[in-house]
Amino acid sequence: MSGPVLVLGTGLLGASIGLGLSRLGVDVRLSDPSPTAQLVAQDIGAGRVLAPGDALEPQLVVVAAPPDVAAAVVADALRVYAGATVIDIASVKASILRSLQDDVAAGRLGAEQLRRYVGTHPMAGREKSGPAAARGELFTAMPWVVCAHETSDPAAVRVAGDVAIDLGATVVRLDAAEHDAAVALVSHFPQIASSLLASRLMNAPAHALALAGNGLRDTTRIAASDPKLWIQILSHNAPELVTILHGLREDLNRLIATLEAPDAEGAHLDLAELMSQGNAGQARIPGKHGAPPQAFAVVTVIVDDRPGQIAELLTAVGEAGINLEDLRMEHSSGHQVGLVEMSVLPGRSAELTEFLTQRKWKVIQ
Amino acid sequence: MSGPVLVLGTGLLGASIGLGLSRLGVDVRLSDPSPTAQLVAQDIGAGRVLAPGDALEPQLVVVAAPPDVAAAVVADALRVYAGATVIDIASVKASILRSLQDDVAAGRLGAEQLRRYVGTHPMAGREKSGPAAARGELFTAMPWVVCAHETSDPAAVRVAGDVAIDLGATVVRLDAAEHDAAVALVSHFPQIASSLLASRLMNAPAHALALAGNGLRDTTRIAASDPKLWIQILSHNAPELVTILHGLREDLNRLIATLEAPDAEGAHLDLAELMSQGNAGQARIPGKHGAPPQAFAVVTVIVDDRPGQIAELLTAVGEAGINLEDLRMEHSSGHQVGLVEMSVLPGRSAELTEFLTQRKWKVIQ
Repeated sequence: MSGPVLVLGTGLLGASIGLGLSRLGVDVRLSDPSPTAQLVAQDIGAGRVLAPGDALEPQLVVVAAPPDVAAAVVADALRVYAGATVIDIASVKASILRSLQDDVAAGRLGAEQLRRYVGTHPMAGREKSGPAAARGELFTAMPWVVCAHETSDPAAVRVAGDVAIDLGATVVRLDAAEHDAAVALVSHFPQIASSLLASRLMNAPAHALALAGNGLRDTTRIAASDPKLWIQILSHNAPELVTILHGLREDLNRLIATLEAPDAEGAHLDLAELMSQGNAGQARIPGKHGAPPQAFAVVTVIVDDRPGQIAELLTAVGEAGINLEDLRMEHSSGHQVGLVEMSVLPGRSAELTEFLTQRKWKVIQ
Repeated sequence: MSGPVLVLGTGLLGASIGLGLSRLGVDVRLSDPSPTAQLVAQDIGAGRVLAPGDALEPQLVVVAAPPDVAAAVVADALRVYAGATVIDIASVKASILRSLQDDVAAGRLGAEQLRRYVGTHPMAGREKSGPAAARGELFTAMPWVVCAHETSDPAAVRVAGDVAIDLGATVVRLDAAEHDAAVALVSHFPQIASSLLASRLMNAPAHALALAGNGLRDTTRIAASDPKLWIQILSHNAPELVTILHGLREDLNRLIATLEAPDAEGAHLDLAELMSQGNAGQARIPGKHGAPPQAFAVVTVIVDDRPGQIAELLTAVGEAGINLEDLRMEHSSGHQVGLVEMSVLPGRSAELTEFLTQRKWKVIQ
């Protein structure tokens, strides 16, 4: 990536891309409909604000605009910057490509111009939004989907992949339809399920919420996501989601019928099917480092809830020379002790347990 | 708790209760339909197997049998052990109480005998089952619901509360109906939602699953739960669940209609409502130490994925004298670096960031 790179849209993702590329020495220019947003992005080091009348000839234009305006901004960029590869980074891909193809069909965009467009989707984000929350490392170790279309110029596809790799991401190649179906299932559908679940808590009595455990916390965490962005994502990927939600509705109807007559013949079998299909689906999600889920052994330790306790514990783990694959703290409201669950390679768990027990840690077996 | 205590059923929870009480010096006797299970429980120190013909006069009988046989075992214990308080620990309470009241109405159980029964529910568990997975600390810092009924003897209610407190739990008093409605919402419904969600992944293409992030992992984690136990829980709490699921079905039908015509007037408003109601429900779940959710500041650090890295980091946090309220590791498949997100009191985050940055940790701001 030699640059210059023009980033159109300096929200969280646009500013993070600018920041990451600037740190690599790329000449990054920024533009955003909000003068404040582009200045904040410049202030944090994401690049320089594009001056009016600046005769820039970017190698790459990154369209980091919201999904509902992304296609229009891409089309504009393809027309204005004749030599540039233009990518967008919206969470939906087919509707944007379709809109650009419509522009070509209607003569608003040249077929040759469309060749320089490549849709992409970095699978990264955080709970905060806006340029002030940007981080150059946002894409580190995350998948970045690159969706070449039928007429994409191979050189443009290469540039799109390069920017992802430069920012530390892993390139995944899918076409737009495959991408939209995949994220509908692994990202948009879980968002809907979590929001539907959490919305049932709006009028829950306080004594019920006081019994909440990690199960409820985990299943509803993403229900805290930003509505503004998600409205656009969900509406742009509506057809894929409708297919999945029809399947959910069928399952839900069957489950309600079963629970309305829980003593009827076959009711227990129906419930067994729900649970075991859930088991089977969950087991297919890849774990860290591509390992199958539950491939790690869990060693659990009771700790006091005071400064340094967990550090002392993990220092001991480090002394044992054992790598933590994952770590989880369990606690419930109103308590000053907690459980630390450490995932390690199965072959190391007995060794770790012995090591910690000898050092007087309360290891639960 | 002076004892002796008789534990009927030596699965994970029964054996854990036996283990915890035995460590406190209580004389615990064990009985289980499975000779192996009761021997394993004895071997791990949960108590002594009840000898046939042993004329035990327990102060307390803990019925730790599965929900579908709990009522029968409680009734039996009330008849056999004339002086004992009898509690059960099943995850559903109204159906068991109703069954015992039916026994009284039919003359199979004395009204006086029922006075010694108190339904309880320790909100604890783990991903493994069986006596070998038992731990005496399982109930530490967890809520333990005690459900007195209309005719409960106050002395029996006291004994039930004492055992919970002895095992380190926090006693929550609710009646059986309140309990069942509460756990339907905060425990059983999330289980159903997670299982329904995960079951959609059964036939997902591998390239879609490879894009899975923490959102999908969190929402589907409990879908890995044991079907056998959950079939009983769900069927015993069916009426409460049906009410909640009807609400879900209404929301789902509205959402499907909206997504089938995503460009219709009002569609965006409908999606905004789904998302913001999810926000509102999620925000009501109490956090650690009863703190409101998101009351903590998050400091994020990039670490290499090798032994001792996280220990070194947390040693630094300990040196700063700052208490970790929560810790989360973020990673995706195929990578050797990760992000560690540490939750601390908001007043300490700037201090921690400065402290770590000075020590050359890569803190993301």
